[in-house]
Amino acid sequence: MPEAYEQDYPLQQLQEVTEALNSGQFVHVRRLLAKTAPCDTALLLESSPHKTRSKLWALVDPDVQGDVLEELSEDVRLSIISRMEPEHIAAATEDMDDDDLGEVLRSLPEPVYKDVIEAMDIQDRDRATTALSYQERSAGALMNTDTVTIRPDVSVDVVLRYLRLKGELPEGTDELYVVDKNNCFLGSMPLSSLLTTMPDAIVRDIMDEECESIPITMDESEVAQLFERHNWISAPVVDDQAHLLGRITIDDIVDVIREDAEHSLLSLAGLDDEEDTFAPVFKSTQRRSVWLGVNLLTAMLAAFVASFFETTLGILPFLAVLNGIVPSMGGVAGSQTLTLVIRGLALGHINATNQKFILTKELAIGALNGVLWALLIGSAIALWKWDLTIGLVIAFAMFMNLLAAGIAGAVIPLILKRMNIDPALAGNVVLTTVTDIVGIFAFLGTATWFLI
Amino acid sequence: MPEAYEQDYPLQQLQEVTEALNSGQFVHVRRLLAKTAPCDTALLLESSPHKTRSKLWALVDPDVQGDVLEELSEDVRLSIISRMEPEHIAAATEDMDDDDLGEVLRSLPEPVYKDVIEAMDIQDRDRATTALSYQERSAGALMNTDTVTIRPDVSVDVVLRYLRLKGELPEGTDELYVVDKNNCFLGSMPLSSLLTTMPDAIVRDIMDEECESIPITMDESEVAQLFERHNWISAPVVDDQAHLLGRITIDDIVDVIREDAEHSLLSLAGLDDEEDTFAPVFKSTQRRSVWLGVNLLTAMLAAFVASFFETTLGILPFLAVLNGIVPSMGGVAGSQTLTLVIRGLALGHINATNQKFILTKELAIGALNGVLWALLIGSAIALWKWDLTIGLVIAFAMFMNLLAAGIAGAVIPLILKRMNIDPALAGNVVLTTVTDIVGIFAFLGTATWFLI
Repeated sequence: MPEAYEQDYPLQQLQEVTEALNSGQFVHVRRLLAKTAPCDTALLLESSPHKTRSKLWALVDPDVQGDVLEELSEDVRLSIISRMEPEHIAAATEDMDDDDLGEVLRSLPEPVYKDVIEAMDIQDRDRATTALSYQERSAGALMNTDTVTIRPDVSVDVVLRYLRLKGELPEGTDELYVVDKNNCFLGSMPLSSLLTTMPDAIVRDIMDEECESIPITMDESEVAQLFERHNWISAPVVDDQAHLLGRITIDDIVDVIREDAEHSLLSLAGLDDEEDTFAPVFKSTQRRSVWLGVNLLTAMLAAFVASFFETTLGILPFLAVLNGIVPSMGGVAGSQTLTLVIRGLALGHINATNQKFILTKELAIGALNGVLWALLIGSAIALWKWDLTIGLVIAFAMFMNLLAAGIAGAVIPLILKRMNIDPALAGNVVLTTVTDIVGIFAFLGTATWFLI
Repeated sequence: MPEAYEQDYPLQQLQEVTEALNSGQFVHVRRLLAKTAPCDTALLLESSPHKTRSKLWALVDPDVQGDVLEELSEDVRLSIISRMEPEHIAAATEDMDDDDLGEVLRSLPEPVYKDVIEAMDIQDRDRATTALSYQERSAGALMNTDTVTIRPDVSVDVVLRYLRLKGELPEGTDELYVVDKNNCFLGSMPLSSLLTTMPDAIVRDIMDEECESIPITMDESEVAQLFERHNWISAPVVDDQAHLLGRITIDDIVDVIREDAEHSLLSLAGLDDEEDTFAPVFKSTQRRSVWLGVNLLTAMLAAFVASFFETTLGILPFLAVLNGIVPSMGGVAGSQTLTLVIRGLALGHINATNQKFILTKELAIGALNGVLWALLIGSAIALWKWDLTIGLVIAFAMFMNLLAAGIAGAVIPLILKRMNIDPALAGNVVLTTVTDIVGIFAFLGTATWFLI
């Protein structure tokens, strides 16, 4: 009887392998890895620091290296491939799906790429050229050509005999595709229908003609949205003359969904494309430095704005003590709005028809937030300093900045999107620049006016 | 011939419906909605402001309301259900999958829930009670009971005849489950194997005995990781005696993956559970106020720390101008580390075996970042003020704060996780409190020591 899945299985495995590796028992590691499924080996590699990773990889059976490469996340896969010989890469990619093959080849530097292509046999070279001819992040790049096609005028019985002759179906096949003699897509034939209809039924009469096909140029995020909305397991891909070119399967879509969602998360934190948690220190530092550099510039800009008020600050140093509060609140409120709008854009919920509504809504929230927190901070500071004027000053600055945060948080991603700049990437930096500068100006400016 | 999918289809639909609704052509809207697939109607509702949403919902054919409810995201579904009569909710949930039924009922307030249960027929009431008996966010709550089971000792031919008699398979069925006479799970029988083996083969000989089953108590995120790693389309769920209870399908897993990834994104921005972009202003303001309130407290704490240095700031107001730079850089660097660690924990990449490595790595990045940005800011400020001492002071503060940011960004989520607090939720607030206070202390403290 098969056992139910052990929850801690990959973790225990990881511990066992790591210990064996550290104590130099390479034969034991090799034996452990031979017992491990490719997807679990991939998890092991992804959860290992770089040095351990190279040692582990060398101990993976060359025959399953291709399977493991397919399961790895892009960044980790690259870190491994970059140290392999072109012939080994060619051998490992032999049994890969078309979409994974294309992804691997696309990520190679020019000279290595040429060597790998040369090391391939003719059949794989053709496959590689086709896979590479589709645009990155398009339906074509997600597609596999392993479709099983049938003609509309045959009976279910004929199809069944054909399938028994074939002996095996490609992984993740839930439907066959019905095409005419020019390979034009006519409809789909779910396996479940084949099993539940009488053998004498004709394919044309029972096929699903409503089945939608995906244009080969469609963007992968849009394809993912379709899969998610329609609960598809696979979908046919066609060119603009409706010729069937291949199919996209849900396992690749799951990766797209995960990547899209993570892209927003990582980008908003200024971590563009840092997929590999275990990347070497220098590489990570270098990657993260871009946004730290941009942030330093904006922080210097804020300091420059504050320097206009140096005299005021010298007379009333208490203002300097309070100067961080208003920008900080603006930053948090603004990034709440920004995150929500970026997510709404990514999900396709925010579009031309309802942009105005979102803007108005976030402006209203900004105003309401403004009143609420202005009252609170104003009272708190007025009581602390026993001075009504300074309470009013900070209350006014707080209101203005939360209003600005609401507007900026909603407008910035919409504008960036229209300019074809990724809103998740640049959004937070532009936003905090706005909330810092408005916050400092509103607080120190009003204070200079009323208190000096 | 079926048309390839039109890329702008749902958007155009949305525009048409919105216009018809605004001009009061309700009959036209009803007709448009009748032509729309439930999943697209769900997208329309999710992309609509609250008022439009209620009007639209009233025009959706009551017979498909259940299908649309199933497709909606949880928050939007709740906003609609909260205005429905118990009898209508009972009617709409009649054809729902068990897992969706459980989710809807769980989200209802106590009195409404009782009324809905009472309005159900006996069969649905039983189904509801079972669905509710499983823990939220467990495999049980994701499970449907619509499995098709077969016995191991029959031939493929018998199975085929049984299926033809049945006439239809539940949506998303890619394999039948083989059970013994006590309903204990023995293995799975993929539809593709049924189609490709000879009719006289016996199920026992060709079934997949390696098929792993999921314990009913497993956490949904863990289930999702298994699906993702193994590229499953569906998986059997069993109790601790290996009795088959139901199955989980990939479409529900896609939702879990999306929700988990979005949860980190939204929580890190202080937007816990704000799923609905179009929630009313008051509701949104209220939900967002929690983290703004917490942030106000930490900003006040930072101000309190700065107030120790009021005398210093009065003598050297230039320090007040520069006081925001060091905490700002610490905040960004820290949240880079924090986000990466939170994501690593969520993906299962970071665990007991490699925590130390991550800590060391982030500490090293913090130190490297510290040296880099300390040199830069130190030189910039020294040149601006033509004063080496102040350059050294801010350089020292920057180094200390970036080191603190690296440690805090890595340690905070690990500690929160061990305390069973969601690291994504509280992480950023705790982090900025650390980087603000260390930043202010390091800068103003060192300045007071050396410059006064």
